[in-house]
Amino acid sequence: MPKKPLENELVQRIARAEVLHTMHQLHLGIGDDAALLAARPGYETILTCDWFLEGSHFLRDKHPADSVGWKCLARAVSDVAAMGGYPMCFLLSLALPTSLTGRWLDDFLGGLRRAARRFECPLVGGDTTQRREVLASVTVVGEVRSGRALRRSGAKAGELIFVSGRLGEAALGLRTLRRGAGGLRTGNPAWRKHLYPEPRLALGQWLANTRIASSMMDLSDGLSSDLPRLCAASGVGARIAAVQIPQAKMPGKDSKKGTNALQLALNGGDDYELLFTVNRRNGSRVPRSFRGLALTQIGEITHLRKIVLVQEDGLERRLLPQGWDPFRRG
Amino acid sequence: MPKKPLENELVQRIARAEVLHTMHQLHLGIGDDAALLAARPGYETILTCDWFLEGSHFLRDKHPADSVGWKCLARAVSDVAAMGGYPMCFLLSLALPTSLTGRWLDDFLGGLRRAARRFECPLVGGDTTQRREVLASVTVVGEVRSGRALRRSGAKAGELIFVSGRLGEAALGLRTLRRGAGGLRTGNPAWRKHLYPEPRLALGQWLANTRIASSMMDLSDGLSSDLPRLCAASGVGARIAAVQIPQAKMPGKDSKKGTNALQLALNGGDDYELLFTVNRRNGSRVPRSFRGLALTQIGEITHLRKIVLVQEDGLERRLLPQGWDPFRRG
Repeated sequence: MPKKPLENELVQRIARAEVLHTMHQLHLGIGDDAALLAARPGYETILTCDWFLEGSHFLRDKHPADSVGWKCLARAVSDVAAMGGYPMCFLLSLALPTSLTGRWLDDFLGGLRRAARRFECPLVGGDTTQRREVLASVTVVGEVRSGRALRRSGAKAGELIFVSGRLGEAALGLRTLRRGAGGLRTGNPAWRKHLYPEPRLALGQWLANTRIASSMMDLSDGLSSDLPRLCAASGVGARIAAVQIPQAKMPGKDSKKGTNALQLALNGGDDYELLFTVNRRNGSRVPRSFRGLALTQIGEITHLRKIVLVQEDGLERRLLPQGWDPFRRG
Repeated sequence: MPKKPLENELVQRIARAEVLHTMHQLHLGIGDDAALLAARPGYETILTCDWFLEGSHFLRDKHPADSVGWKCLARAVSDVAAMGGYPMCFLLSLALPTSLTGRWLDDFLGGLRRAARRFECPLVGGDTTQRREVLASVTVVGEVRSGRALRRSGAKAGELIFVSGRLGEAALGLRTLRRGAGGLRTGNPAWRKHLYPEPRLALGQWLANTRIASSMMDLSDGLSSDLPRLCAASGVGARIAAVQIPQAKMPGKDSKKGTNALQLALNGGDDYELLFTVNRRNGSRVPRSFRGLALTQIGEITHLRKIVLVQEDGLERRLLPQGWDPFRRG
């Protein structure tokens, strides 16, 4: 490999690493001015994009390149899951230092390839450039049966609020990763969830196709920030109960140090679980778990346009957005 | 305006500034997890994305924010023009310092809005975050009649090579901008072309719909870098003549200083003119100008897989890629 690959060579390497799937709807992939895609009749196209920036969303010295590749795609695919859709393909804008075009890029592309295979979402185009820091912006194109997309705006007063999985696990994983204790233990569920999140595609598709859910979004910034967004879009409020929120299992060491699992569940980002609402008459159609993933009712939608948390002591308090906000920390 | 807007507020400001067009195919815009789009039968979807990064693609102290907004969209729309397509909508990933969320952002959104109106390409989604430097990645979605897209791979030996406009004007504009001579003279064609490039949409569509062209791309990095890409995709070579290449008119001052218009035309980036090939029997169907835009034959496609420049003195030399390459300069 040349020490300083030119842009053409880099595009070819990425193309070789990534165009993995034959995709009958894809008429033209990497290497032309743009990609060409044929849409299926009876489907709507889903479009979403997400940043993944060194220093903001990952740390080069803490996060393995393989995880950076996986997660930059998983984050954007999660938005397709949140609509009840099927990912089709993605575009990658990638900037990186010349010094990382060797082993680091190979590992990054390895993680990206695994994610693309898992989500059945091949790379079809993008843009590359040189930069001091690693910057990625991923655009995912998906599809959903016409009229079946689950929006944030469909929640109505009296409906039940559900979440998938356990909340706060990814934030717990980040906390231990930052501490840098030991090598990578991918067997640890919190680490795995932080490094290699799994968008809840099958669950989202099931909820959309069966019309069980009335509104849905993915939890990327934390429940205390994301639930108000769903409520604002629907023109409603919510009351949730602390004791019902599925929380991360804290390791003995952390619980001794006073780490609060509830705070992580409310304010921790990066879980990529689904938050959805269900009309009461459909409540019994929601199983306790879907393909091994827990589904938990955490509260209900209210007329009053505020978010109320019933604490473990039974007292109610207003829940304020304390999740991830890049501008609050900036 | 608060000094530190939170992400929700920023998304709302962008939404207010940008969702300008009613678009019957757009079912859901900014504010949900993703955008929803209905594709028309008989059309293919075009997907393309482009970086626009402070320090790499623009200088915060030299380029007006209004131009940054215009150009980040124009660059990506040019890839749709290069396929013969029609832009439909775009996604914006934007990162910026908190200090620029006031006047600078307003001006940026103003330029973006003007471009979105001009290209009939509304904003439908994106992602925003906080960052020390301004970073933008724009994804444009377009459409083209099925089977009519003009690819890079369609050129055949013996065909004529054409370009639109004058090459090197944008590079000349950048040169004078860097020198910082005087205020912004938008009446100057080189400045205007550098700051507010116009993707050649109508020309690209006409060439695709009439089937006059056999291959096409846009000139973003410079002819000496882009022509070899078209030739490589088509498995051919090219011979072009220096005297035929339409060059920028050099101001008296620059020509005295020995600035070479031919070098700018060969190696200057950012022109966003179209490079296309035409079968000889269609050659007479190409007018000298299309809606006021000059169309010039600069050479022909050859069997031999190399790019030859016939110099002004009649001698031939091999043309090497000397256009913009972020990894060469890095």
